[in-house]
Amino acid sequence: MKMYNFRNDYSEAAHPAVLAAIAAHNDEHVIGYGADDYCANAARLIKDLCRCPEADVQFLIGGTQTNFTAIAAFLRPWESVICAQTGHINGHEGGAVEATGHKLVQAAAGPDGKLTPELILPLVEAAADEHLTLPRLVYISDATESGAVYTLAELEALSACCKANNLLLFLDGARLGAAFGAAENDVTLPDLARLTDAFYIGGTKNGALMGEALVIVNPALQEGFFRIKKQRGGVLAKGWLLGLQFQTLLEDGLYWTIARHAVDMAHALQSGLEAMGLPMMSRSASNMVFPVVPDRLLPVLDRLCTYEVWTRQDADHTVVRLVTSFATRSADVEGFLSDLKAAL
Amino acid sequence: MKMYNFRNDYSEAAHPAVLAAIAAHNDEHVIGYGADDYCANAARLIKDLCRCPEADVQFLIGGTQTNFTAIAAFLRPWESVICAQTGHINGHEGGAVEATGHKLVQAAAGPDGKLTPELILPLVEAAADEHLTLPRLVYISDATESGAVYTLAELEALSACCKANNLLLFLDGARLGAAFGAAENDVTLPDLARLTDAFYIGGTKNGALMGEALVIVNPALQEGFFRIKKQRGGVLAKGWLLGLQFQTLLEDGLYWTIARHAVDMAHALQSGLEAMGLPMMSRSASNMVFPVVPDRLLPVLDRLCTYEVWTRQDADHTVVRLVTSFATRSADVEGFLSDLKAAL
Amino acid sequence: MKMYNFRNDYSEAAHPAVLAAIAAHNDEHVIGYGADDYCANAARLIKDLCRCPEADVQFLIGGTQTNFTAIAAFLRPWESVICAQTGHINGHEGGAVEATGHKLVQAAAGPDGKLTPELILPLVEAAADEHLTLPRLVYISDATESGAVYTLAELEALSACCKANNLLLFLDGARLGAAFGAAENDVTLPDLARLTDAFYIGGTKNGALMGEALVIVNPALQEGFFRIKKQRGGVLAKGWLLGLQFQTLLEDGLYWTIARHAVDMAHALQSGLEAMGLPMMSRSASNMVFPVVPDRLLPVLDRLCTYEVWTRQDADHTVVRLVTSFATRSADVEGFLSDLKAAL
Amino acid sequence: MKMYNFRNDYSEAAHPAVLAAIAAHNDEHVIGYGADDYCANAARLIKDLCRCPEADVQFLIGGTQTNFTAIAAFLRPWESVICAQTGHINGHEGGAVEATGHKLVQAAAGPDGKLTPELILPLVEAAADEHLTLPRLVYISDATESGAVYTLAELEALSACCKANNLLLFLDGARLGAAFGAAENDVTLPDLARLTDAFYIGGTKNGALMGEALVIVNPALQEGFFRIKKQRGGVLAKGWLLGLQFQTLLEDGLYWTIARHAVDMAHALQSGLEAMGLPMMSRSASNMVFPVVPDRLLPVLDRLCTYEVWTRQDADHTVVRLVTSFATRSADVEGFLSDLKAAL
Repeated sequence: MKMYNFRNDYSEAAHPAVLAAIAAHNDEHVIGYGADDYCANAARLIKDLCRCPEADVQFLIGGTQTNFTAIAAFLRPWESVICAQTGHINGHEGGAVEATGHKLVQAAAGPDGKLTPELILPLVEAAADEHLTLPRLVYISDATESGAVYTLAELEALSACCKANNLLLFLDGARLGAAFGAAENDVTLPDLARLTDAFYIGGTKNGALMGEALVIVNPALQEGFFRIKKQRGGVLAKGWLLGLQFQTLLEDGLYWTIARHAVDMAHALQSGLEAMGLPMMSRSASNMVFPVVPDRLLPVLDRLCTYEVWTRQDADHTVVRLVTSFATRSADVEGFLSDLKAAL
Repeated sequence: MKMYNFRNDYSEAAHPAVLAAIAAHNDEHVIGYGADDYCANAARLIKDLCRCPEADVQFLIGGTQTNFTAIAAFLRPWESVICAQTGHINGHEGGAVEATGHKLVQAAAGPDGKLTPELILPLVEAAADEHLTLPRLVYISDATESGAVYTLAELEALSACCKANNLLLFLDGARLGAAFGAAENDVTLPDLARLTDAFYIGGTKNGALMGEALVIVNPALQEGFFRIKKQRGGVLAKGWLLGLQFQTLLEDGLYWTIARHAVDMAHALQSGLEAMGLPMMSRSASNMVFPVVPDRLLPVLDRLCTYEVWTRQDADHTVVRLVTSFATRSADVEGFLSDLKAAL
Repeated sequence: MKMYNFRNDYSEAAHPAVLAAIAAHNDEHVIGYGADDYCANAARLIKDLCRCPEADVQFLIGGTQTNFTAIAAFLRPWESVICAQTGHINGHEGGAVEATGHKLVQAAAGPDGKLTPELILPLVEAAADEHLTLPRLVYISDATESGAVYTLAELEALSACCKANNLLLFLDGARLGAAFGAAENDVTLPDLARLTDAFYIGGTKNGALMGEALVIVNPALQEGFFRIKKQRGGVLAKGWLLGLQFQTLLEDGLYWTIARHAVDMAHALQSGLEAMGLPMMSRSASNMVFPVVPDRLLPVLDRLCTYEVWTRQDADHTVVRLVTSFATRSADVEGFLSDLKAAL
Repeated sequence: MKMYNFRNDYSEAAHPAVLAAIAAHNDEHVIGYGADDYCANAARLIKDLCRCPEADVQFLIGGTQTNFTAIAAFLRPWESVICAQTGHINGHEGGAVEATGHKLVQAAAGPDGKLTPELILPLVEAAADEHLTLPRLVYISDATESGAVYTLAELEALSACCKANNLLLFLDGARLGAAFGAAENDVTLPDLARLTDAFYIGGTKNGALMGEALVIVNPALQEGFFRIKKQRGGVLAKGWLLGLQFQTLLEDGLYWTIARHAVDMAHALQSGLEAMGLPMMSRSASNMVFPVVPDRLLPVLDRLCTYEVWTRQDADHTVVRLVTSFATRSADVEGFLSDLKAAL
């Protein structure tokens, strides 16, 4: 085993408090498929936190599943999705959205992976031609794939653009904890409930065994959701496990505390690497760090830690991705930085 | 809370040994998406138990998901599925198979829910007409929805019929533990590996938090499976949790022990109810019991236990379903029977 | 070539007037994809005939295509279709509706192939369970597959049942001409516009080279239809050919005249066969006849005419289908009956 | 009506010889769905012309339909299509391929719209990651959307690249006539049969009422095609009309003669416009011409002819598309050029 783990934020099973909660309730007899009190409590809690009593909260198992189930539920067959070319649904989700029949119309977002009205509008205008699909939903992630975080002003602009153009705004929050944990974040859950049609609060990457809490704000999108969730394999038999985990994470703010911790660890990592002279592909605000590493350094990295190769920068340099989580300790970051320094 | 729980076999979180295993490994750093050692170990174990080294073992989260992902992976677009009219994929799975584009061609199975060559062949013959879909896969469950268990002779006959007619045989084993725990069972895992093209070993209904182990025996069906599993939302980020659970359940036979216990409890329940004069809709060999209850008794049942209404028998009688699990204790069965007797 | 042709009603290319119209306009330069004046005229004509100015009329190429495109356009992913077990979409359409992701929920209609509220309601009630698909559209054909014709009272009852249960009513009119040509018919186009949500007027089986005119009565179902028609391959590049044909068939009533002729020919055929002692599987009101033929007579039939085997009646008898069309002449019917009599 | 028609190559109904053939056979009784002698003859003719007796020839109605039906038939659910960003399937086909569940992986082709191994290979390499779809089919058009024509050397290179990378090569030949009519064309039907896995010969844009002849060269792709064609609405009831048209166009070479005429007309148009000082977006080898027109000239064009706006070049210039066909006469081209000159 490597000394340090920066591969991703879903390497550990669960935050100890989450596991303890499951153990504490293990032998209760609970009704199946999410019709239980834990799910009802967690849903109520989330609606309270969003100040949005009319929302429908649906628990699903993972991010890809939540993305394609929501998109398939919200769209009509001739409607398509606008996303960044680098958006997660356009990459590592195995063509899941297309497998539900919907085209992805790709916008050429910048290195931060953010969409803007300027990127969206030409795609909408082109689609006045009825031989094309009709773009109807804008997919964004917060944090984005490269760790950037939307500001409130950016979300307000996107939301206004969407409303003016009959577009739904859907926010992938698989790393919403890390986004909200960023120093520059000025967005809140009530903001998301006000500005999007639907978004989700990711559990898998922030302390849960598994689970995403989809908040369907727009009442027109709520009909039939349980049926399609069942149809697409997103209903967990022991659904109460999802409710119980979100209840545990959210009722006393544990979710936000551990997310902020992960971001703090990432910042320490980023600062330390920069201090060693390694530039960043782009400065990340959240729990992912993207140093540009001379290729001759890669064997050193391999020996020290787990990580992922992100992309090739040029003939001699590679961008790698280091990710922190609730389980990353200060001592890990310090140890890694000091070991790396020693190896240089 | 009701005194006795017979609602289903997925009311509890997990068998204590499973939960203990997760807790013991909680803070390891494990690679994601099932590329880990636990999954590799569990897959090897299953292939050994099946005496089928060429099988591909794939872990998925739930039964509906396993059914539709396997069927979508195995079939070409113009091919259809033969199933019993009462088959689970034709009922409580929200049209999941059709949502992947495949028609279900329904056979009129009897009350035990079993398919036979006699039921299958006319459907195949009708499809010589190229304006129809081509039936290409036969879907069966063991145990069936009504708790019946296939004999080895029945499976041999089905398998021969399928081979002779270019049909794949797929066995839904969500309740395979309970089937193998039945007194009349004479089928083994190596038999399934020899007679079917693919089958699965259900975890959700026999001690796991969640998870089904799909055994793709036919090498021609193995290609591309991980990609479609990802595409349809069946890849768990913390996939090692599935491997670890199956390893825990299978390495010392715990899976079979707890399944047999559940069946024993069901038999005690069935005998006790019959002794009280309640007839059965059909005698179940596995962990589900289907007494025909006079409607005036339903309020008593409601007070005593959780259960599900199965179907209406006639103007005055209802068939209910009682299910046992690893968590059902002898004392529960005895207490329930004695309380029920007292109430009559 | 056989002496007499009763194979189907789409054996000839087109009614001479239709072909003449195409020839007359062959070298005009017409805008593509149905955005032309012929389509506009034909649509206006149909809306006038239906007394339904708010309808949207869409031309498609064939019946299977019209059925699945309309159903895919009208339904959400979790919704299903109620149809007769003998309905065309459940048989000779190659699983086209399921290929769009929607389940067919089959009702056990009688030999006439008609649906009734009594057949529909239990299917709706069962679907209160959210683990099932939600039945949302009732598919009927007029004439049915076995040539029966709905009465106005029957359609009124179906329509009321659908409205009361949040079901859309969709009528496959591939043989609407023959239905309206039946002596017992008391239904009109304005009735269909009042009682259904959408229906179509079949051209292929009544004088056109190809083409079906879909009348989407319900405004809530009209949105986006051109886009999905394009997406599913139903937009003909030279779409004006569809408009021109329907204009030719409908502007002076030719459509109804030739349909009535076909029905008259069928009745003459039916009466003649009954007079020879051949019973009918069911008495057909439209342009199809279903005599029950002793198997020893089949070689005689083979020599005399084209026809289709419909089903096996018993060990010694076969039901065959004879179909008439605009191109069937009285002399054909008389000649066939007399030759058959001679051969007996 | 405008004086000159350059809107597209599908504005007229059919070449007079095609219409005459239909009229001559109008009242025959022909078996439905393409099981007739005309289709058999036309298929044999095409296989002879391709020197490929093992090919399967399938007639479909239109181009979008042929593209998505073939792709859906050839691919497994986890497989995707590599196409030029400007490819027809990625634009004016309403998301038809995605509606069958398959992702389009877009290559950044140049202005001529051609794919090369250099564009394809990086997309294949990226997909070694099993969280992505597996690119399995390369879609090209000859002529391309901008009228360019593949050379034999280019097709040889693409074919070799595909074979080396387990990719199918599929050629959209909606404008194959115009491609083969180009002066620089050095490709033949036997070349296509040798180098691609499937391709089609377009009828709609070269003299037929409608119809495309799909040549499935690769035997592994032939299974089940009729069933999926039926399922996706591509089987014409009066299918013999397609066979008869292709027989008429191909048996004496009419197809190639009229295509070459269209190309000659386009060249005359292109030369004349260049002589007037109008540059071309790109020089087209086939029957489409793309002059860059100063915006102040557009009203003149509007008055003189039908055409389509292709794209905006800069603040003051628009690229328009002019298309010729079998029906374009020399006098039309000369008259248009002279009238345009006069108007300048």
